[in-house]
Amino acid sequence: VAFAPDGHILATASVDQTVLLWDLTYPTRPRRLGDPLTGHTDAVIGVVFAPDGHTLATGSDDQTVLLWDLTDPTRPGRAGWVIR
Amino acid sequence: VAFAPDGHILATASVDQTVLLWDLTYPTRPRRLGDPLTGHTDAVIGVVFAPDGHTLATGSDDQTVLLWDLTDPTRPGRAGWVIR
Amino acid sequence: VAFAPDGHILATASVDQTVLLWDLTYPTRPRRLGDPLTGHTDAVIGVVFAPDGHTLATGSDDQTVLLWDLTDPTRPGRAGWVIR
Amino acid sequence: VAFAPDGHILATASVDQTVLLWDLTYPTRPRRLGDPLTGHTDAVIGVVFAPDGHTLATGSDDQTVLLWDLTDPTRPGRAGWVIR
Repeated sequence: VAFAPDGHILATASVDQTVLLWDLTYPTRPRRLGDPLTGHTDAVIGVVFAPDGHTLATGSDDQTVLLWDLTDPTRPGRAGWVIR
Repeated sequence: VAFAPDGHILATASVDQTVLLWDLTYPTRPRRLGDPLTGHTDAVIGVVFAPDGHTLATGSDDQTVLLWDLTDPTRPGRAGWVIR
Repeated sequence: VAFAPDGHILATASVDQTVLLWDLTYPTRPRRLGDPLTGHTDAVIGVVFAPDGHTLATGSDDQTVLLWDLTDPTRPGRAGWVIR
Repeated sequence: VAFAPDGHILATASVDQTVLLWDLTYPTRPRRLGDPLTGHTDAVIGVVFAPDGHTLATGSDDQTVLLWDLTDPTRPGRAGWVIR
């Protein structure tokens, strides 16, 4: 679980190897942002926002870290990836 | 264990599936704030404050993330929840 | 492992239930600060600095969170404690 | 997984006891920075940047915390180490 630096987006790692983004503008009614972030092939063990809030890194037991472009959080896109 | 951004509130995850809030204005005498945050049905595995300090997210093995409104920390209230 | 907000003090949780403080003014020669922080009766699972850098919280499997007063980091003192 | 405070460097702990640094200036094409950080003799369990971004601490099950000088991130160097 990680908040974006602006506090309005929450990223949650799911047990099904996906990561979900949530709009918390109205915390009583969180709203899903975009499609689930898919690509990991094993459990997601960490989600970390870059300080500028536009990049999310997700680490997994599949030995990769995926990077996500959240410039438009309603349309998150895969940026790059690295081996861990 | 997480400090609120203002450093005066500490949130601790308990083994009994609750989360407790503590007033640290006087660190030598921490004082419980409000009632225990109840709702999770399995172990709490993470507590994270939003950057503004008014929202707390608690993740649990029950596959949910609960959001708490701490605008008045002496009366914490459940805001929303998301599936993880 | 946690850095104090000013970046000059590192707190490390040890396997022997103690927490150590290190002066990193000269990172090539870390120097122990004060005596080991003792009091936990089981493994230490988290160390977190308060944003002001003067208070450290240490969580343990002994079901307590101890608070430490680091106003004078060369003489760390136990502040308070809470049940988790 | 940890971002440097400036958001342009990512540190990832690898399963092979090393830590890798990545230049994220172009997140779609992460580029390895310098050689792998070697020295730990057991699994790396945490990577933390100091607030100034110039020092990285890596904790390991080998019971040490290694400190790394990232003043020139293309040539990371071992600074010091402490027992945990």
